Amino acid sequence: MNGENILELIEQKKYIQLKRILSEMNEVDIAEILDPLDVNTTLLLFRMLPKDLAVEVFAHFSTDQQRDIINAVTDKELNYILDELFFDDMIDLIEEMPANVVSKILANSSNEERRLINQFLKYPPDSAGSIMTIEYVELKKNMTVGDALKHIKETGLSKETVYTCYVTDYKRTLLGIISLRKLVISDEDIIIGDIMEEEIIYGHTHDDQESVANIIKKYGFIALPVVDNEHRLTGIITVDDVIDVIEQETTEDFQIMAAMSPSEDEYLNTGIFKLAKQRIFWLLILMITATFTGQIINRYQGLLQTAVVLATFMPMLMNTGGNAGSQAATLIIRGLATEEINVSDGLKVLWKEFRVSIIVAGSLAIINYIRLMTLEKVGNPVALTVSLTLVVTITVAKMSGSLLPLLAKKLKLDPAIMAGPLIATTVDAVTLTVYFSIASLLLGI
Amino acid sequence: MNGENILELIEQKKYIQLKRILSEMNEVDIAEILDPLDVNTTLLLFRMLPKDLAVEVFAHFSTDQQRDIINAVTDKELNYILDELFFDDMIDLIEEMPANVVSKILANSSNEERRLINQFLKYPPDSAGSIMTIEYVELKKNMTVGDALKHIKETGLSKETVYTCYVTDYKRTLLGIISLRKLVISDEDIIIGDIMEEEIIYGHTHDDQESVANIIKKYGFIALPVVDNEHRLTGIITVDDVIDVIEQETTEDFQIMAAMSPSEDEYLNTGIFKLAKQRIFWLLILMITATFTGQIINRYQGLLQTAVVLATFMPMLMNTGGNAGSQAATLIIRGLATEEINVSDGLKVLWKEFRVSIIVAGSLAIINYIRLMTLEKVGNPVALTVSLTLVVTITVAKMSGSLLPLLAKKLKLDPAIMAGPLIATTVDAVTLTVYFSIASLLLGI
Repeated sequence: MNGENILELIEQKKYIQLKRILSEMNEVDIAEILDPLDVNTTLLLFRMLPKDLAVEVFAHFSTDQQRDIINAVTDKELNYILDELFFDDMIDLIEEMPANVVSKILANSSNEERRLINQFLKYPPDSAGSIMTIEYVELKKNMTVGDALKHIKETGLSKETVYTCYVTDYKRTLLGIISLRKLVISDEDIIIGDIMEEEIIYGHTHDDQESVANIIKKYGFIALPVVDNEHRLTGIITVDDVIDVIEQETTEDFQIMAAMSPSEDEYLNTGIFKLAKQRIFWLLILMITATFTGQIINRYQGLLQTAVVLATFMPMLMNTGGNAGSQAATLIIRGLATEEINVSDGLKVLWKEFRVSIIVAGSLAIINYIRLMTLEKVGNPVALTVSLTLVVTITVAKMSGSLLPLLAKKLKLDPAIMAGPLIATTVDAVTLTVYFSIASLLLGI
Repeated sequence: MNGENILELIEQKKYIQLKRILSEMNEVDIAEILDPLDVNTTLLLFRMLPKDLAVEVFAHFSTDQQRDIINAVTDKELNYILDELFFDDMIDLIEEMPANVVSKILANSSNEERRLINQFLKYPPDSAGSIMTIEYVELKKNMTVGDALKHIKETGLSKETVYTCYVTDYKRTLLGIISLRKLVISDEDIIIGDIMEEEIIYGHTHDDQESVANIIKKYGFIALPVVDNEHRLTGIITVDDVIDVIEQETTEDFQIMAAMSPSEDEYLNTGIFKLAKQRIFWLLILMITATFTGQIINRYQGLLQTAVVLATFMPMLMNTGGNAGSQAATLIIRGLATEEINVSDGLKVLWKEFRVSIIVAGSLAIINYIRLMTLEKVGNPVALTVSLTLVVTITVAKMSGSLLPLLAKKLKLDPAIMAGPLIATTVDAVTLTVYFSIASLLLGI
């Protein structure tokens, strides 16, 4: 059953059929179909869904639709939604909603919930605390496997993940973990404390979300426990959150590398003024930087006037330098992001890039020299000037393209800033200085 | 216990202590410590590990270390490793190993295994079939929950994931799925067929790995079943594979967008000739494209000679055009990759980019005009020429930066090709033509 058929049934008001079909569909698909509809139709269909499914669908709605629904439902319905919503989804919701909706949500929460919400809202953005959830299975050391399975049976339904269970003491100190798989394959009367894993890998509430995502990725975990400063279990981060974090951090890198201020907003939902603002800052910086390159040209106006043919090769030299630098910078920035490359590999990287530069620069310079002598027939001094400059440009570009991201990382800055655009503008100045110097030497001007 | 302490213990030959410490560590960490050691030391420590752990560690070794170990171990040991290795890891291994090692592996496999290996090696690279594994729990419709749990208990230990179980008939046709969570919370005598999920979301063996990764991501699954053309269950893809796929596809995009031929090899392990080869092709293409820009300059040599000051602003104009185009292209390419933007949004995107261009171009042109008139004092005709060109350049760059990736996607090409470097080189030609045309008009040359 696809979206169009559903829309047809809605138009024909075949509600009984709709109810049956929707209740068997996946929550993500239902949300996708209902989200673009007007709030009245959405609400009508939303109320037809089995309650548990409805809450899951709600969690997948867009912010706008969530707001409209909260404003439209009764307090009783809202209460049910808030009770059943996973805690991390609830925090996301509160962060996105306008003040009047937040008031309505808080008015429908218990004191204990309000205290927790407050605590979670205080975690720094992009920290482990800000993406974790509090729904997990907590076991005690002296329980048997049978007790544990019974406990899961009684409470497990509303947990975001029951597949890893956490063993804590009375102060909620994290003592061990045990997987549901291990519980299922173990005998009922074995004591949890005897079979739990005590060498636990965990994150801290104030860790950066990227670093906890990298831990889950590295070890192939389904969930990671998060503890506070007193080593008390405060939440867990699940693998689906990690995928979101990885995508979000990657998108940020793409944006920074393309000389934009990073933004988490979806492109199609972002206003044009916000999009423009995201782009103007770096364009302006790079525009001003490029005027230094202009000043170099200015200084050599006499030379250019005498041999105006030199201007012909400026775009090619500058572009090739920019591209060569961008290649190196991209590989290093990406390697640092996926932790394939560490700052300690710096010398190895530079030595590698130096040798690669020589091969690349040498090949391109030779091809270029032959082309200039045979096809363009510019004469030996110009051909030699252009080709020699190409060698210097590519080498400088690749060396700075690999050095600058490493340096940024070392200085705890985001390596992604040191990408193509900034390197291109920097290398331009070197390129033209070298170009005009060699030219005035070889052309004797 | 960190890596350095372990290395110290190895140097001091404190093997009993080592054995105790290693056997409690995570396989990923052990592999990380042993991998850089020489094969004899690795093998010595490797043989100390509990057998199950040893196999898990083996799966995390680098290709080089795996090859050396296979060459060094006895047939009996190899047999154990191959038996216990997850099937997808085994396929990866065979694909990476040199011919003589593959022979040794195949000689130690059963006929049935060899048949399966052959089948799996035939799946296209980057297809769902090539990343799936065959370790999963298979249940029958008429089993009770109690039977199912007993079945998992007996066989579950060696399954890559037991958290989703698959219900099949005698022809292995996929009938339904049921989560371990549901089994644990259900009564023992309920029939699987009555509670299994029949609306199954699945992939096909020949689907692209990126599209199955996107399904798992979209629905937040832990695993996705993969069926063949007869709807028979042939394997499952787990969420940890999806993270690898997403990272691999993203790295490819980064490389293509920075004008490189994509490569899956790790940077530090790639030879300089391979790295050079990866970069030369596109540099050459873009170098040749840039000569067209050179020819435009050639055509306006007379104009340039008369007003050589015009050369001063060429780098700034070309860079700004390139950067503006790169910004738009990056947002669109990334949006298409994360499926936030579809080809059908094309007109909406172009209209958005057009308006953003006007704001960005207008602001930058005004700032630029004021700067040229006050700081650089170049006179009104030149200031006007530069500023007007800037408006055209930024608009053209942003429009082509958004149009070309959409067009590529429409033509089923990789949108990432239409990134910064290619757009910059294309926009350069437009920029200079516009620049010189306006100049000759305004300067009256």
